[in-house]
Amino acid sequence: MSTTPALVIKQAKAAMVKYSIERREVGTTDVKVAIAYSGICHSDVHQGREEWGSALFPMVPGHEIVGHVIEVGAGVTKFKLGQTVGVGVFVNSCRECDACKANLESYCEKGPVGSYNATDYNGEVQYGGYAKEIVTDEHFVVSIADGVNLAETAPLLCAGITVYSPLKHWGAAPGKKIAILGMGGLGHIAVKFAVALGAEVTVLGHSLNKKDDAMSFGAIDYRSTADKQTFVDLKNKFDFILNTTSANIPIDDLLGLIKLDGSLVFVGLPSESQEFNVFGVTGARRSISGSQVGGQVEVQEMLDFAAEHKIGATIELLDATEAATIDAAWNRVVSADVRYRFVIDAQTI
Amino acid sequence: MSTTPALVIKQAKAAMVKYSIERREVGTTDVKVAIAYSGICHSDVHQGREEWGSALFPMVPGHEIVGHVIEVGAGVTKFKLGQTVGVGVFVNSCRECDACKANLESYCEKGPVGSYNATDYNGEVQYGGYAKEIVTDEHFVVSIADGVNLAETAPLLCAGITVYSPLKHWGAAPGKKIAILGMGGLGHIAVKFAVALGAEVTVLGHSLNKKDDAMSFGAIDYRSTADKQTFVDLKNKFDFILNTTSANIPIDDLLGLIKLDGSLVFVGLPSESQEFNVFGVTGARRSISGSQVGGQVEVQEMLDFAAEHKIGATIELLDATEAATIDAAWNRVVSADVRYRFVIDAQTI
Repeated sequence: MSTTPALVIKQAKAAMVKYSIERREVGTTDVKVAIAYSGICHSDVHQGREEWGSALFPMVPGHEIVGHVIEVGAGVTKFKLGQTVGVGVFVNSCRECDACKANLESYCEKGPVGSYNATDYNGEVQYGGYAKEIVTDEHFVVSIADGVNLAETAPLLCAGITVYSPLKHWGAAPGKKIAILGMGGLGHIAVKFAVALGAEVTVLGHSLNKKDDAMSFGAIDYRSTADKQTFVDLKNKFDFILNTTSANIPIDDLLGLIKLDGSLVFVGLPSESQEFNVFGVTGARRSISGSQVGGQVEVQEMLDFAAEHKIGATIELLDATEAATIDAAWNRVVSADVRYRFVIDAQTI
Repeated sequence: MSTTPALVIKQAKAAMVKYSIERREVGTTDVKVAIAYSGICHSDVHQGREEWGSALFPMVPGHEIVGHVIEVGAGVTKFKLGQTVGVGVFVNSCRECDACKANLESYCEKGPVGSYNATDYNGEVQYGGYAKEIVTDEHFVVSIADGVNLAETAPLLCAGITVYSPLKHWGAAPGKKIAILGMGGLGHIAVKFAVALGAEVTVLGHSLNKKDDAMSFGAIDYRSTADKQTFVDLKNKFDFILNTTSANIPIDDLLGLIKLDGSLVFVGLPSESQEFNVFGVTGARRSISGSQVGGQVEVQEMLDFAAEHKIGATIELLDATEAATIDAAWNRVVSADVRYRFVIDAQTI
């Protein structure tokens, strides 16, 4: 065991406090990482405030972790001391099911083990990345190229792979027209990745107040979903729409913007059930689909692609000297008052 | 112009009456068909009773038409006198859009022209197959192999292609496990086709009263959706589920039966909006999708496949000497009191 400073939530909705937590001894295939930066994900807020059902407390949130290797187990083959690495949303999976064998650990049939608010198969409670150090099995550690902006890379470990994986799966590529619905923490990275993948990208937002940013990220158009003309002008236009919002959305109107055989892909997670008219899918063989973060091979591919194309999140860096700063940032996440993702400087924890 | 006896609905919900209607002169690329049998589709009832929005009256329903060629235009190349043929759901499309060029006339971007309750691009109102003759452009006529049971083949022109097309599109084949939800007019043909395509087929019905029929069609299991244990036993089992019902269905429970990357495919058309929880699609990259009848190339492929595998609908043949017999049959369609599809003997019209 070793101890490390962390930001801890002692019970649901409680204010964050600084506190030392224990990390396990570095096992044979484990890597100990000195955390440099830790991104804030909206799902941290949902779980810390117990909005997604019962959660485990005390909780150390955080699954967008970047840093440097400071210790390796005797059996570690992929990493060496000093190497820049990342840890994302999951830290274990069964390694035996069809999904795991297909490098899709995130869809593990036994249920992948989250980086926090989760218990590993052996009973060990997991604490996340709002801390100075973490110990993780090397299978769930990925390599980060030299020379990238490390703070801007942190959000890629969840937000980045959450959008990169469906962009690849549904075929963002030259010649494809796609729409990104919502340009927040997920959506702004989706625009950057989709443009880099060669697709023609339109952003659909409620208001037009992020239009300039979208165009600077490489989008070719930005249209308001509050304007009925949008649904006339863009009828049957897109190969697919990636919905990055967690709001209730007008599914039937959006389906009308999608070509034959196209899809409305959810990565945002609205808590309420969504409604649709069946004629909207049957009439053009469309689908309503969804995905979550990719497996470890794809996380690595995404980070390499991001490094090659100089893609990071657009961030606001937070000093955690006062823990209350992070609580305040969470409130701003809830009110969508951030362009576009918060990252905690772990040196200040 | 020529005239032909037909079953006519003079206004919405009116009783059917026998009446002579006009058919156009046989044009250069037209085929005149002496109708032998005409299937009854649930959509006939919806349209004749104006349940799908405003309809065109007088109406001659029917888009499951089989018969023999009795006249051909000078430019007809595919058909000769006496040949056994079929006419299905559509009788024209733009022939120029991407869908038409991809042999998917049913998804024509200009809007395909229905066989009845529709107006062709030139203004000609279309009358369907509850009649003794029909005149149709050869592009929308398909060939039927010698030796098949012609009455049992009629329902394939709509019900058959409605299920064959998604079975092929979503990959029914050896090694695949699929479920057919609902075993009525569409569902019972879906079971026969899916079995012939080599898939392992389970039927999901509300009650178990069609189990013996399903097993005789080649299904390996039949489970009740009213039994909660079904959703435990069959969790994550199916590559896809084909929903052939028009009822409201428990989408979230059904999604739980589908594997990673699988789909819940609608071909039935519930009139009410359907609800789903987004976690049901994101958690296993599933989709909710839908399709309708295939294009003309696929209709021909389906009929050839049916002939090769000796697949027809299981039918109840109707004598239309009294038009009221057909009204009564419609009522039985609404109450799902038919095993499994009605076919009108057109000689009796």
